[in-house]
Amino acid sequence: MSQTSGFPAPFTREDYATRMRRALDDAAAAGLDGLVVTPGPDLVWLTGYRPTAITERLTALVLAADRDPTLLVPVLERPDAEAAEGAAAAALVDWADGADPYAAASALLRPGGRYAVSDSAWAMHLLGLQAAVPGARFHPTTERLPMLRAVKDANELARLTAAARAADAAYEEIVTVRFEGRKETEVAADLADLLRRFGHEQVDFTVVGSGPNGANPHHEAGDRVIEAGDCVVLDFGGLMFGYGSDTSRTVCVGEPSAEVRQVHDVVRAAQEAGVAAVRPGAACQEVDRAARRLIADAGYGERFIHRTGHGIGLTTHEPPYMIEGEERQMVPGMCFSVEPGVYLPGRLGVRIEDIVTVTEDGGRRLNTTDRELRAVG
Amino acid sequence: MSQTSGFPAPFTREDYATRMRRALDDAAAAGLDGLVVTPGPDLVWLTGYRPTAITERLTALVLAADRDPTLLVPVLERPDAEAAEGAAAAALVDWADGADPYAAASALLRPGGRYAVSDSAWAMHLLGLQAAVPGARFHPTTERLPMLRAVKDANELARLTAAARAADAAYEEIVTVRFEGRKETEVAADLADLLRRFGHEQVDFTVVGSGPNGANPHHEAGDRVIEAGDCVVLDFGGLMFGYGSDTSRTVCVGEPSAEVRQVHDVVRAAQEAGVAAVRPGAACQEVDRAARRLIADAGYGERFIHRTGHGIGLTTHEPPYMIEGEERQMVPGMCFSVEPGVYLPGRLGVRIEDIVTVTEDGGRRLNTTDRELRAVG
Repeated sequence: MSQTSGFPAPFTREDYATRMRRALDDAAAAGLDGLVVTPGPDLVWLTGYRPTAITERLTALVLAADRDPTLLVPVLERPDAEAAEGAAAAALVDWADGADPYAAASALLRPGGRYAVSDSAWAMHLLGLQAAVPGARFHPTTERLPMLRAVKDANELARLTAAARAADAAYEEIVTVRFEGRKETEVAADLADLLRRFGHEQVDFTVVGSGPNGANPHHEAGDRVIEAGDCVVLDFGGLMFGYGSDTSRTVCVGEPSAEVRQVHDVVRAAQEAGVAAVRPGAACQEVDRAARRLIADAGYGERFIHRTGHGIGLTTHEPPYMIEGEERQMVPGMCFSVEPGVYLPGRLGVRIEDIVTVTEDGGRRLNTTDRELRAVG
Repeated sequence: MSQTSGFPAPFTREDYATRMRRALDDAAAAGLDGLVVTPGPDLVWLTGYRPTAITERLTALVLAADRDPTLLVPVLERPDAEAAEGAAAAALVDWADGADPYAAASALLRPGGRYAVSDSAWAMHLLGLQAAVPGARFHPTTERLPMLRAVKDANELARLTAAARAADAAYEEIVTVRFEGRKETEVAADLADLLRRFGHEQVDFTVVGSGPNGANPHHEAGDRVIEAGDCVVLDFGGLMFGYGSDTSRTVCVGEPSAEVRQVHDVVRAAQEAGVAAVRPGAACQEVDRAARRLIADAGYGERFIHRTGHGIGLTTHEPPYMIEGEERQMVPGMCFSVEPGVYLPGRLGVRIEDIVTVTEDGGRRLNTTDRELRAVG
């Protein structure tokens, strides 16, 4: 990871305008009249606008065939919204504390209209819109807008690559620090510092799951003191240039036991198989099946208790999901994790994770640190 | 602020069970069959459970008269949920990746039933429930559960008091650091360090609005280099023992101009009037009116562009709101900000903010640093 690599080119007003048109065309193709996009990754992707906080004050971008793109904002957040590059591609409408934001929004929507609404929009806002716009029907955007966002352009891919390299650099450093005798939280703090040092503007998670804690895939880091012989799951990531990193490696404090070696070999082979299954046109579930088959064949099928992967972009966790039943096809430019794991309750866990991008003829890892079982001190 | 003050007593399983019963009784009084509570402050208050991340995977506590409290969780988050103290007061039901979480939830809900749903529940989850439970109607919890949470018990008040004292200690230190010639972001980083040093486990915001940036009430901190003569709005807070702090003071780099003194005097008098209007039985809007009247009388009515305050508790920003039209009455134990401001576009802003709790016969500030216009270096 070169820290001197320049900041990527900013997204332009035209980039945002194009995305808004694509989103609206895509909604129209699904028989929808438009979209209601609230703060979060959808709004960042469409406008570059990321409010300071997501609150009970309604902010919404309305895209509809019968009007120009319109961004409704609380009046005191108007200066922030105006400063976003993509806001110039939309009309701004504000509402003041004490006014009814749903009445303001309903003026932008058609009675009886059908609209997609951001997955993470607050329920109180959706209920407000449902009450304010007679006969309007709302649908989750899950199947549409996030799937447009899932296919990254060259600029986005450059940012994800930079984030992955920074995470890899953090891994190469963390394996040189002391594990034995320190709390998980201390190693986690080291990891967070490293991510920031290598360029992350935000750290989202630094999992340090030692010994039995590794068997809980959602364990973050606790007060447990790491011991010799522990298997330690490291899973960390955040945002760099606005785009996510997420990688996992499992290390061993000193010499691994035969069981640890065996489980690690299985997971490593499964991760390899998952990555090998990445190719345009194949269903996302094929990645899950390929990784899961290896683990099941080794007798650990019941111990792989989560899906194989998730998309990554403006967030570290978004569609598409690499899971049985996900029949959507992989498309060049998609980026997602491949992260099988085996969890032995009360004893240990092993997980190996890379971000992979779909190329014209297969998959390419953005994380490139080796996947050997490394010994740490 | 004593850093040696002990950790407050933990909330017990019985505390959580009592809260669940109160929430259900309150819903019944509103003619509702129950509540669907998703991750966020409502769920923390009812169970102590705070998932690592709020995601597209449905987690929901269902409280209904016809069943015991039931917490539905993704299977891989079950260990985390089980570890929460209040989870012992509910039955746990899990669902695995690939299963339909809305089908699982609908088994806990009654067709045609009426339920309150957490304000910040994801729209995709609400739409999923609306589709899965025939004839069920959902309502925002805004008017109910957050208003139960708004009235703090003694343990909660002790935590909010500790958080306020820590924020005050941070203020007393920050006025001793150098402002002139440094970027806003550098002073903001100092503030964040101080909040952590005095016991905060989480820093939510550190606004440093210097000169013209102070005129944007939602400005955080930027690259502007602070100059002699600048008026600087400081507004900072986060979480300590799980409860929020939030205080603002406006300082001046060197000697203030006559205009700065005048505006500061007006805001200070308005804040005093707002605090003086706090008393049980009065409507929340009276606090806003009292503060706003002073500012309007001084000719700055158009320059006070936000409500006077917001509740604080498990989050730094929640009901009740001190705003025109809010006719709900103040109740002993409520805690909220009183934070009038005056914003002169392109030039400066002044804001003064304390957290105030409603007592048996008035209001009491939790923040107690002086509200003079202090000079910094």
